[in-house]
Amino acid sequence: MTRFRLLHKSSTCAARCGELSTLHGPIHTPVFMPVGTQATVKGVLPEELEALGARIILGNTYHLFIRPGHELIRSLGGLHAFMHWQRPILTDSGGFQIFSLRELARITEQGAEFRSHLDGSRLFLSPEDAIHVQEALGSDIMMVLDTCIPYPAGREEAARATALTGRWAARCKAALSGTGQLLFGIVQGGMYPDLRRESANELVETGFDGYALGGLSVGEPKELMLEMLEATVPHLPADHPVYLMGVGTPEDLVEGVYRGVDMFDCVMPTRNARNGMLFTSRGRLVIKNARYREDPRPVDEECTCYTCRHFSRAYLRHLFQSREILASQLNSIHNLHYYCALMAAMRRAIAADRFDDFRRRFYAQREVPA
Amino acid sequence: MTRFRLLHKSSTCAARCGELSTLHGPIHTPVFMPVGTQATVKGVLPEELEALGARIILGNTYHLFIRPGHELIRSLGGLHAFMHWQRPILTDSGGFQIFSLRELARITEQGAEFRSHLDGSRLFLSPEDAIHVQEALGSDIMMVLDTCIPYPAGREEAARATALTGRWAARCKAALSGTGQLLFGIVQGGMYPDLRRESANELVETGFDGYALGGLSVGEPKELMLEMLEATVPHLPADHPVYLMGVGTPEDLVEGVYRGVDMFDCVMPTRNARNGMLFTSRGRLVIKNARYREDPRPVDEECTCYTCRHFSRAYLRHLFQSREILASQLNSIHNLHYYCALMAAMRRAIAADRFDDFRRRFYAQREVPA
Repeated sequence: MTRFRLLHKSSTCAARCGELSTLHGPIHTPVFMPVGTQATVKGVLPEELEALGARIILGNTYHLFIRPGHELIRSLGGLHAFMHWQRPILTDSGGFQIFSLRELARITEQGAEFRSHLDGSRLFLSPEDAIHVQEALGSDIMMVLDTCIPYPAGREEAARATALTGRWAARCKAALSGTGQLLFGIVQGGMYPDLRRESANELVETGFDGYALGGLSVGEPKELMLEMLEATVPHLPADHPVYLMGVGTPEDLVEGVYRGVDMFDCVMPTRNARNGMLFTSRGRLVIKNARYREDPRPVDEECTCYTCRHFSRAYLRHLFQSREILASQLNSIHNLHYYCALMAAMRRAIAADRFDDFRRRFYAQREVPA
Repeated sequence: MTRFRLLHKSSTCAARCGELSTLHGPIHTPVFMPVGTQATVKGVLPEELEALGARIILGNTYHLFIRPGHELIRSLGGLHAFMHWQRPILTDSGGFQIFSLRELARITEQGAEFRSHLDGSRLFLSPEDAIHVQEALGSDIMMVLDTCIPYPAGREEAARATALTGRWAARCKAALSGTGQLLFGIVQGGMYPDLRRESANELVETGFDGYALGGLSVGEPKELMLEMLEATVPHLPADHPVYLMGVGTPEDLVEGVYRGVDMFDCVMPTRNARNGMLFTSRGRLVIKNARYREDPRPVDEECTCYTCRHFSRAYLRHLFQSREILASQLNSIHNLHYYCALMAAMRRAIAADRFDDFRRRFYAQREVPA
């Protein structure tokens, strides 16, 4: 049984709209998920997230496993109650973070041995553990534990890691205890189209509630990422959601949707906000630039977010230069609103079957076309 | 003409309730003013300030003069529009900050020469400049430029600085250009009761919209501060507001009100919030303490603030340990709410003429009586 209902499909490309049912209500796709690594989307209150249009957020299993611990979160009513967010949450499996530890991690058939980035203590996570942790967190969508592949990687290394990811995925599914939480598989395969295809086929055979593309946006050229997307998405069942993990720029979202992606997450809107880089309909704006010193205009004159409704570029520049916390808060609200509004605009364009037109105008509007 | 209307007076002590009219509406006293040094109360949005009960905030002339500059703020519609806060604002004169620069500042009859703490550039502020800057900022209540006195200080030094403060205060008043902004004088006098009395008398003769006590809480014993309060307040006109600058702890607010103080400001609630120290009806709570690791209770079970309504001590501890921005946000909301609610409770107690009873119960409720 699929929890995903296809609502609209572009007649000219792979873009589509759908509705995914979760324990905490439906999500309309394509959707962007703000990242709340440590049980908070940095600098933004839950009510603000809601107001700026976020409908599902992402939590990081690796971080929450290490601190404050999944059993603590379970005892306090789960991640939703802990962080006061009642809409859906997707948790990653920790695979990517463990992979990022590099020399601090060792992968075996059994699972991942690694050292905590906080205190160096030895830890272990098996595919079954990853499910138990995510069940304790109580997320709406769980991800299988996967093994990431560096870029570049030789074919043999990529094949070996991809095969292991497939076996781990099956173990994750077998470990489910029937909580009603959804479980997504993760397609690996490095930059080898045939390995991606094999990985997709194997996961589909095992059967998941949705399918993610992992190991992309890891340093490869943009065209290669899009090529991998094109090599994979057609091999996934059309009645299941497709999630492109950890991607990306506004341009990446448009290109992903164009190729059939339904879900995205990325730290870029919040991280860049804290660094003073703001997304606008005309491109990027670096708020510390001297040209904004006396600028009374909002960040984006077409934007309806809280920040743009009440504050000038001059004020935001002052806050950033003064290293005020409020700079991170207001910039994060704006950037997340930009991302969520972009997804909403894409949903409307797909529903009206004018996504190609939307995509053309998206680029035309920007000062520096991608 | 006084803009201050006395509403209630305790029959057993100097505590009183009043209403002060300003260009941005009335303020009910006694009142606490959250500090918004750089055109933001650190970590708190204007709407949140409003919701937690703040009715007037303080801006720092010294900081805004240096960055982003008062002329820039004037050109953007004044401090209220710049920072999106439409209720009253009091601006200090910069005297205390310049005094705090110590070796970077030199005081002459003409004014204060000092170096910017940001880039070391040479700057000068006369009493007339302090008024012009505050008129450009457009605050509701301006403060005269004063010369602070270190603690301890010899009688001669204190007398000299106090006399200069008196002459500067008269020059500030003469420099007013009729904007309707209120101007408060500042009583100095170090820790010498007779100098405090002389300073008060001289300022009252010049005539101001309100009177502040400066140079207190600068390292002297608490009893000495209270003694100075008692030596000064009776010499100020009862139909004008009394403002105790830069003070203090919850206990200080209660003792100040008891002795006739109407207005307070202090960085303590926000600064301590960022350091994880929370104020509660039962005393102080250090959120990083291991005992709160699994504590599902709110910070203060009697508190109705946003933070206490939605988050556990365990969550706040996790945020603080994880160095998350949200820790500063939620802790600041709680502490400022505590301060504002404490003032509101004092206003109610005075109106019912049971302030002595309130004060007794305030101490009885605390784990560690002051």
